[in-house]
Amino acid sequence: MQVALVGVTGYSGMVLYRLLKQHPQVDEIHLYGHADAATVPLKTVATMYQEETAEIRPFDAATIMRDDAVVFFATSAGITRQLALPLIEAHFPVIDLSGDFRLHDPQQYQHWYHREPAPAAALAQASYGLADIPATLTTYIANPGCYATATLLGLAPLVQHQLIDPTSIVVDAKSGLSGAGKRATDSSHYVAVNDNLSLYKLNQHQHIPEIMQQLQQWWSAVPAIEFTTTLIPVTRGIMATIYAKAHQPLTTAQLQATFNDSYQAQPFVQVLPTGMPTLKDVVGSNNCALGVDYNPVTNTIVVVSVIDNLMKGAAGQAIQNFNRYFELPVTAGLPTLPVFP
Amino acid sequence: MQVALVGVTGYSGMVLYRLLKQHPQVDEIHLYGHADAATVPLKTVATMYQEETAEIRPFDAATIMRDDAVVFFATSAGITRQLALPLIEAHFPVIDLSGDFRLHDPQQYQHWYHREPAPAAALAQASYGLADIPATLTTYIANPGCYATATLLGLAPLVQHQLIDPTSIVVDAKSGLSGAGKRATDSSHYVAVNDNLSLYKLNQHQHIPEIMQQLQQWWSAVPAIEFTTTLIPVTRGIMATIYAKAHQPLTTAQLQATFNDSYQAQPFVQVLPTGMPTLKDVVGSNNCALGVDYNPVTNTIVVVSVIDNLMKGAAGQAIQNFNRYFELPVTAGLPTLPVFP
Amino acid sequence: MQVALVGVTGYSGMVLYRLLKQHPQVDEIHLYGHADAATVPLKTVATMYQEETAEIRPFDAATIMRDDAVVFFATSAGITRQLALPLIEAHFPVIDLSGDFRLHDPQQYQHWYHREPAPAAALAQASYGLADIPATLTTYIANPGCYATATLLGLAPLVQHQLIDPTSIVVDAKSGLSGAGKRATDSSHYVAVNDNLSLYKLNQHQHIPEIMQQLQQWWSAVPAIEFTTTLIPVTRGIMATIYAKAHQPLTTAQLQATFNDSYQAQPFVQVLPTGMPTLKDVVGSNNCALGVDYNPVTNTIVVVSVIDNLMKGAAGQAIQNFNRYFELPVTAGLPTLPVFP
Amino acid sequence: MQVALVGVTGYSGMVLYRLLKQHPQVDEIHLYGHADAATVPLKTVATMYQEETAEIRPFDAATIMRDDAVVFFATSAGITRQLALPLIEAHFPVIDLSGDFRLHDPQQYQHWYHREPAPAAALAQASYGLADIPATLTTYIANPGCYATATLLGLAPLVQHQLIDPTSIVVDAKSGLSGAGKRATDSSHYVAVNDNLSLYKLNQHQHIPEIMQQLQQWWSAVPAIEFTTTLIPVTRGIMATIYAKAHQPLTTAQLQATFNDSYQAQPFVQVLPTGMPTLKDVVGSNNCALGVDYNPVTNTIVVVSVIDNLMKGAAGQAIQNFNRYFELPVTAGLPTLPVFP
Repeated sequence: MQVALVGVTGYSGMVLYRLLKQHPQVDEIHLYGHADAATVPLKTVATMYQEETAEIRPFDAATIMRDDAVVFFATSAGITRQLALPLIEAHFPVIDLSGDFRLHDPQQYQHWYHREPAPAAALAQASYGLADIPATLTTYIANPGCYATATLLGLAPLVQHQLIDPTSIVVDAKSGLSGAGKRATDSSHYVAVNDNLSLYKLNQHQHIPEIMQQLQQWWSAVPAIEFTTTLIPVTRGIMATIYAKAHQPLTTAQLQATFNDSYQAQPFVQVLPTGMPTLKDVVGSNNCALGVDYNPVTNTIVVVSVIDNLMKGAAGQAIQNFNRYFELPVTAGLPTLPVFP
Repeated sequence: MQVALVGVTGYSGMVLYRLLKQHPQVDEIHLYGHADAATVPLKTVATMYQEETAEIRPFDAATIMRDDAVVFFATSAGITRQLALPLIEAHFPVIDLSGDFRLHDPQQYQHWYHREPAPAAALAQASYGLADIPATLTTYIANPGCYATATLLGLAPLVQHQLIDPTSIVVDAKSGLSGAGKRATDSSHYVAVNDNLSLYKLNQHQHIPEIMQQLQQWWSAVPAIEFTTTLIPVTRGIMATIYAKAHQPLTTAQLQATFNDSYQAQPFVQVLPTGMPTLKDVVGSNNCALGVDYNPVTNTIVVVSVIDNLMKGAAGQAIQNFNRYFELPVTAGLPTLPVFP
Repeated sequence: MQVALVGVTGYSGMVLYRLLKQHPQVDEIHLYGHADAATVPLKTVATMYQEETAEIRPFDAATIMRDDAVVFFATSAGITRQLALPLIEAHFPVIDLSGDFRLHDPQQYQHWYHREPAPAAALAQASYGLADIPATLTTYIANPGCYATATLLGLAPLVQHQLIDPTSIVVDAKSGLSGAGKRATDSSHYVAVNDNLSLYKLNQHQHIPEIMQQLQQWWSAVPAIEFTTTLIPVTRGIMATIYAKAHQPLTTAQLQATFNDSYQAQPFVQVLPTGMPTLKDVVGSNNCALGVDYNPVTNTIVVVSVIDNLMKGAAGQAIQNFNRYFELPVTAGLPTLPVFP
Repeated sequence: MQVALVGVTGYSGMVLYRLLKQHPQVDEIHLYGHADAATVPLKTVATMYQEETAEIRPFDAATIMRDDAVVFFATSAGITRQLALPLIEAHFPVIDLSGDFRLHDPQQYQHWYHREPAPAAALAQASYGLADIPATLTTYIANPGCYATATLLGLAPLVQHQLIDPTSIVVDAKSGLSGAGKRATDSSHYVAVNDNLSLYKLNQHQHIPEIMQQLQQWWSAVPAIEFTTTLIPVTRGIMATIYAKAHQPLTTAQLQATFNDSYQAQPFVQVLPTGMPTLKDVVGSNNCALGVDYNPVTNTIVVVSVIDNLMKGAAGQAIQNFNRYFELPVTAGLPTLPVFP
């Protein structure tokens, strides 16, 4: 198979390229930049590619549709909205790692992304590719956001089985710096991050609406979630610590049984039999690890959900969606063991 | 003034020693180890002391009471229960950084510390020295725990003014490694901590009962709190992210006004006019910085409280209690600016 | 192919297991512990293995020779000296990641390792598997040490072509914590490592004699090297900064040409056309990246050599030696792109 | 005493402000920005200052000379060359943390700083304030660079006593990120620094000429030094590992005796009786810690010199020069214990 990758210079694109290079069904990768970019050798964009002879060419939908079986977009918000329409019209398979096609409602996109949305008709053709929860895929797969993935996999059993007070959900999410992208800013400066913690986009994070869209599809009674994001001094990894009041008293063992039921068929989701997962349990793998606890004193459920934001939270889940779409083995080309230590 | 310090080899003791050395009212520091220790030169216990000629002598209550105006205990749990009784009987001033005398109820101590408690009569003579909330001090000051300090300073205005649903409190606390002490364990190994996050003592942390004891003293309607602790890859610093449902809708501005009222007389507590504090806003200082937010969508209040666990959370607060007890200037010997960068 | 792995619980063993799991020629991995260990499920030894059903059995040479094509030892110093003799006698293929069989001279082993050496006759059957420098392999491959690999690959062109004053070599090597193993000690405590640098084993490191043994084989005129090791606050990665006076004035371009000649056939060695490599250029890959510089003002050559200590410095090079020994494609099962970011 | 500080927004200026605030002889600090800046409240420039009411006013030499006893410049290269001339003409005391007045030779400045130098006549009035080596100070004190301080204190006894081959000096210097300033760049991005090491300005660092100027003043036979700088993932701290061939064989004990002689009168310089210093031995203090070793096998001396780049390497040494100039107690306002842990 030949595949196209648009946007190899960002973190997600780099990781995706590495995964595609070692994917047993991928023979060739064609690299593309933005529409108006010039052709450049891949090795000029990052030290890690120095031995590669591949080139990055300007985006060209017709060439991609002629040469490739699928195109991955690892581009920033606002790009696929501009580039992907001819592919959508032609029903050509697209896996889009950006947020442009995740929200069905164009107004929600405008509100949270502060950008012009894609046309409603185009949005309607996209499916939300939360890969560890079975669902039907269309040819345009909107790969979920990293925070959304960790949060939704942690909440799914609770919400689908209506085990909680739906007004009580609090998500205290922590993310490493690679989630914030490559741009050098005051807040990504080493001195600002090292030995520090900082909250950002409090209740303003653009992954909130895709979480709500999915939660309400599972259970319309969920009105909203309290959602904070804290930047932590690590490169990779997201931990979502989820709190909710139990609908009625239960036990930690019952919770674990429910989670095990939900995920027993999913090779990339691990429900821990005891204790809570750490980032290093998953970083480098495509896994999501989950720990659960019920505190009878406060009638509160805690779920801890950890993922590698660039694997399960981006490139890994994209490969998983690729495998699903083309009906390849679900773990093809995807590591199930973390890079440890 | 001459002062005694028992336990200079732990992290809190090291920081306390440094603060005492630069305190304008302290002329001499006498160092003591456990009861059965031999006399050793201070410089042998840590590289940082190499130029010091001071000695660590075995603990001797009589000598301390003869030579010193006060004794600080920077010892582990279980030590002051054994050593402090003669000092208590003599009504000699003690500032105890350990948890042995924080809980009024001996059974609570036994339950949470898994150790034999001090006699109830001795416990009754101790006062809980939460230094930034005015209260009367006795001669035996139980210096609060680090998590308890960050949490209580963040919750005090909400609980004292009954602004919240008292059953809805969730505290997601994060702490650096110095809070866990010097002992080399699998979980304090660099490789286990670097690039990682891990929860520990979920709803089991021994600072929970002192938090509850204080909260219920402020408002008996608070039944319990949900309290998680996450180890983060930093050396110093605690962040307590506190969530609670508002009793009735309000605004972030109202919250800020309430917090400003509560803390306007406290030089070490900073209520941020906007945004949320980071660890680096306080590390190296004796400050607690607080940020507040009200989310009308979920009717949830978020308070972020940050401290340096070894300063405000241990040695700094001990000096502050020393200043209070001896009616010295409140900021004597205490830095109000963080060590930045 | 079926392979045996002795010692899966250390860092090198964990990485080796992960590599073997994804190696296209490896069908099954049999795990062994020390001779007197009991059988335990693999998933009990580390969180990362929780989904695995594999077992660790007590070491048994006969079973290994019956079932497997090769055995990897990822054990500490002193173990293969005890376990490997029957395998040596039977000329069964062994890849030994420990230092027990790297030195031809038993007295050198005793001097640097402070342990009893293997018999001289057994040592004579081992070959030193510096995989990126062509040489003949015997059935017993002593996989080089991490510092030795980085240093030798950086020095090889200079020494083989006698470009330097052989008495002037200084190696300032820096290593992350995973190189020091899993044991929790005062010096591996997070607080001791984070924000810190520390030298250790100054001119005493046990990799010095294997470096000297190899250098003198290339050029007998090299009498000794000055070699320091500094622990740095990273998990993975070694950087060897190598200084030597040039035998006669040259240019950086001439140096690069020499290095390119030496390594042009080696897919895992990258000579940078400009600048100096960083750890992140190689971590997660089996690569060694080299940068060179000649300073005419001081007549000094600088070579910077970086590797991932657990890949090229241990498990990756072991797989590379496995590929060489069984004449598999040189890059089979080995990543040539770093895990970035 | 009243003092002026120009440039409080950079890292050195922040640290200097904190030190001046707690200096027993400093009553008031007047803050100034660049010549054409507007007056702004100090608390707007960094979170740490939020409780401060001080203002930053535009630079005005006349006001400074009227109100203050001395002015500190914590400004970037190129600023004092423009602002300080009226102060020099008036022989007003200046402590300049920038590099503008360190080199006596204007051409050297132009060569290494790629900027126009100050007039030779002005440069001639400046003295190089290496505070731990006794020397006469003029009214214009050029505070040494951070790398230069660590390197010179490590080399001084060797060079002054001509113990080494003067052509053999190699300095492998490592520095934390605060040494590179606040500017957000690709190379100061957290992801580029965390878990990484990178060399920069190989033999091009602008501190090289001030090191050479001082070394040659001590011993004209030193022709040049090989000097590399490696960025390490820490916020604060410099380690200079210095190698040189011994002029004639000696012992580590002899080296230590020589270093002890050189520094016995200096309260901020610690010669370790054994082992090598770590960054944490000095960070937060104004100390320089030195360890020495002689390797008879290679006839090589190793000196490890560590400082806090913002204290001894900038603001701390500036206070020390202030104390020297005004004949205050040498340790006034300066911590001699590190901030540990």
